[in-house]
Amino acid sequence: MAAIKHPVKINVDLGEGYGNFKCGPDDELIPLIDHANVACGFHAGDPLIMQNTVRACKAHNILVGAHPGLPDIQGFGRREIKMSPEELTAAVRYQVGALKAFLDAENMPLNHVKPHGILYGMMYGDKETCRAVYEGVPKGTPVFGLAGTLHEEVAKEMGLPFVAEIYGDVKYNKDGTLVIDRKKKPWHPDETKKHVRTQVENAAVTAVTGEEIPLPIGDDHVSLCCHSDSPGALEIVTAARQIVDEFNKKYFPNS
Amino acid sequence: MAAIKHPVKINVDLGEGYGNFKCGPDDELIPLIDHANVACGFHAGDPLIMQNTVRACKAHNILVGAHPGLPDIQGFGRREIKMSPEELTAAVRYQVGALKAFLDAENMPLNHVKPHGILYGMMYGDKETCRAVYEGVPKGTPVFGLAGTLHEEVAKEMGLPFVAEIYGDVKYNKDGTLVIDRKKKPWHPDETKKHVRTQVENAAVTAVTGEEIPLPIGDDHVSLCCHSDSPGALEIVTAARQIVDEFNKKYFPNS
Amino acid sequence: MAAIKHPVKINVDLGEGYGNFKCGPDDELIPLIDHANVACGFHAGDPLIMQNTVRACKAHNILVGAHPGLPDIQGFGRREIKMSPEELTAAVRYQVGALKAFLDAENMPLNHVKPHGILYGMMYGDKETCRAVYEGVPKGTPVFGLAGTLHEEVAKEMGLPFVAEIYGDVKYNKDGTLVIDRKKKPWHPDETKKHVRTQVENAAVTAVTGEEIPLPIGDDHVSLCCHSDSPGALEIVTAARQIVDEFNKKYFPNS
Amino acid sequence: MAAIKHPVKINVDLGEGYGNFKCGPDDELIPLIDHANVACGFHAGDPLIMQNTVRACKAHNILVGAHPGLPDIQGFGRREIKMSPEELTAAVRYQVGALKAFLDAENMPLNHVKPHGILYGMMYGDKETCRAVYEGVPKGTPVFGLAGTLHEEVAKEMGLPFVAEIYGDVKYNKDGTLVIDRKKKPWHPDETKKHVRTQVENAAVTAVTGEEIPLPIGDDHVSLCCHSDSPGALEIVTAARQIVDEFNKKYFPNS
Repeated sequence: MAAIKHPVKINVDLGEGYGNFKCGPDDELIPLIDHANVACGFHAGDPLIMQNTVRACKAHNILVGAHPGLPDIQGFGRREIKMSPEELTAAVRYQVGALKAFLDAENMPLNHVKPHGILYGMMYGDKETCRAVYEGVPKGTPVFGLAGTLHEEVAKEMGLPFVAEIYGDVKYNKDGTLVIDRKKKPWHPDETKKHVRTQVENAAVTAVTGEEIPLPIGDDHVSLCCHSDSPGALEIVTAARQIVDEFNKKYFPNS
Repeated sequence: MAAIKHPVKINVDLGEGYGNFKCGPDDELIPLIDHANVACGFHAGDPLIMQNTVRACKAHNILVGAHPGLPDIQGFGRREIKMSPEELTAAVRYQVGALKAFLDAENMPLNHVKPHGILYGMMYGDKETCRAVYEGVPKGTPVFGLAGTLHEEVAKEMGLPFVAEIYGDVKYNKDGTLVIDRKKKPWHPDETKKHVRTQVENAAVTAVTGEEIPLPIGDDHVSLCCHSDSPGALEIVTAARQIVDEFNKKYFPNS
Repeated sequence: MAAIKHPVKINVDLGEGYGNFKCGPDDELIPLIDHANVACGFHAGDPLIMQNTVRACKAHNILVGAHPGLPDIQGFGRREIKMSPEELTAAVRYQVGALKAFLDAENMPLNHVKPHGILYGMMYGDKETCRAVYEGVPKGTPVFGLAGTLHEEVAKEMGLPFVAEIYGDVKYNKDGTLVIDRKKKPWHPDETKKHVRTQVENAAVTAVTGEEIPLPIGDDHVSLCCHSDSPGALEIVTAARQIVDEFNKKYFPNS
Repeated sequence: MAAIKHPVKINVDLGEGYGNFKCGPDDELIPLIDHANVACGFHAGDPLIMQNTVRACKAHNILVGAHPGLPDIQGFGRREIKMSPEELTAAVRYQVGALKAFLDAENMPLNHVKPHGILYGMMYGDKETCRAVYEGVPKGTPVFGLAGTLHEEVAKEMGLPFVAEIYGDVKYNKDGTLVIDRKKKPWHPDETKKHVRTQVENAAVTAVTGEEIPLPIGDDHVSLCCHSDSPGALEIVTAARQIVDEFNKKYFPNS
């Protein structure tokens, strides 16, 4: 299997605290990443956290995307909720607009939209859900998703630029979809390194059931995702950064 | 006392239902008004209601403004909550941005921002609160408020266009501020007519304590506000519309 | 098919407003019913509404049960949310306890527990869900549910007294389960009368697909449910009351 | 000034996480304390956390009280909200009832009620608020509060047993009231030790303004409170435990 065809970036979900509740070590993670997916208040994040997170990203020159989720702070957007397509579109539009207000105030562009948690999983499982979510994304805004799934197929149908995600701290099912846990499990940094290396070098990954499966990334641009709420998030992102930097240097020495 | 110097418009708070809960007779009110203040999900409204309300306003060519409130659906934004200035700015920015996403999707402009309920009252009572709220309003967007109070003073300091509000279904205190009730009380349409007529004809109003008090509107543009959650809202707005139309026809026959 | 073997009672969901939002005509319905299912704050209801509803029921000598729902006021407990069994048990226990506090303050017993909306439907579709919900019900408290489904089977396994429900304003699927809509549809009172009469007289009902299906009520005690948020709720409950009273008088003249 | 007249206990607020959000190191704190104040879902805590916290307390033989707060998870119950007396009573009754359901399921008694955060502060500042909150407490249940304030005066008027609290990680104003911060500030364990020692030995404390002020504890039973969300909570509680144990051993060697 061939290596990924573009330099790989790293994205992390940020701003996932709520009120006094802190989630990940955002301040330490920001210098290590390229893209931030900022929570928009439905699964985590509140207006003040969003404002502060956007400003921190600006200070470090990080590109910011919206990270809309299901309306469920208690479940951290990781419990499936059956909503109508109209509700999903409106929920995504609302959240992206709210984040955009903070970006506008800082003269920053909306870089992308990446749906959060179980919503991300519901989208690759059901075309109507996927269409409904993308309907709420401003025209022309790139969406992050899983290559070779409905994420990519529907994005292309609807004319939205698509960026393929690979994962530093999430395991894959045999069919190439993700194992979405309610709470993140710990990863050893060496495990992350191996997991990332096979993905960037071979466009393939070992599924939880043991098979080596191909990641149908083709020509897509790629961003590797890590989670700020994983136990040991800083070590995980540091490990992923190292492998991604090695890969980029080896294959794209001039980028 | 002199009459108001510009044609008077009518604004109503719309989209103040939540999920299955309906608030006012929005569909019947829309044809009677000039401006809609659309709830943004914090004191009422949810994304789907916002989307539907914006579309209904578009269909009737009604100008739409944001109606941000305190984060308190249970209290309908009418219970005071002590928030820091940063929290208030972020809360307003968030809500206005969310509404703007629905307007953007319909190619409609954001016409104005009008703070809701007790937040409106907190603003004319405290300069820091007023500044914090306006800080969350996009530059150049008109704000609706009470003439002669901090609403107007701070808007002018901060360079925000100001539109003076008068009220069809709210009583005034002796100092020109409003009597904000948790639940709207009924008004007889004749009472509304009299209340509106003295305001538009004389720029004055009878306070709850009996005094005739001047409304320091001066040269401001004016929009008269009614509430969709008042009992008999349709009759109240119909009555107000009649008086406002008579006034506009008499003083501004060519407008 | 044989008639129901006990006098039929009527239960209605009450206290389903939220803050300023009103739901049904509770005050008019209370004198017409035998049992109230009082919302517990998760799908509707707030503490003050619960307190006032319990007191109104006491004043009319109505027996009160808890009506716990999924944590989703925006969806009125009618959107499926995938929760773990432990979460469901805790959510039910919490809500029933909250209602019990208001009953204790009025020296009223907890008469029963009736799960609300989609939770009710999830329970007859999945044994683990049904067990998890009943696990949160205080030992010995009767539960209301659909005869011949997991509602009844699991209640009996777990030693909870079971009361069979029939419905005045809900249609049945061919398999005897209910058609749960997000928003209640209107019923003509004559339609309700016919719907109720076949149920009480024949222990049978016409499914939405046209078949006459038996209701496996057997020897169970029966309570007929109507919804306070149905359009025309007062007319529906009045119609149902008439048929139920005729039935009870005819078959149980001395009760 | 005289020492406290009874053995001193230690209470800590527990179960103050929410969904995936963790608050303090509850598991490590439980073995160090006598009483737990368990959050009831309004300012923090959710049903599953409550259930697990109650079970953990049972396993360590810790007495459990209810810790009701204002309905404001985003503000952690530390933002003042103006609610009516009826709303306050109902909110407290609801929360205490919810906790009681988890205690009932474990055959544990409700040991006490301690209002949380700004609600605690609002109570010693306003008699009507204090009465409204206590009105929601089951008859005969002890309440924890500040000696010599309305907490104690109103409890005695209403016939509720009163336990005086002193604080290991909160500073006092000159008038004997508390400095309630939105987020807890760090304490050095030595600072806590000194703060606790003067309180238990002398029934006095140094106010933030420098004065030594008496704590009018008189004959009251006393429980010292620490917060699980203080930075370094484990060190603070360990330090407080040491001083309290020394005090109890010295003055009440046989207790």
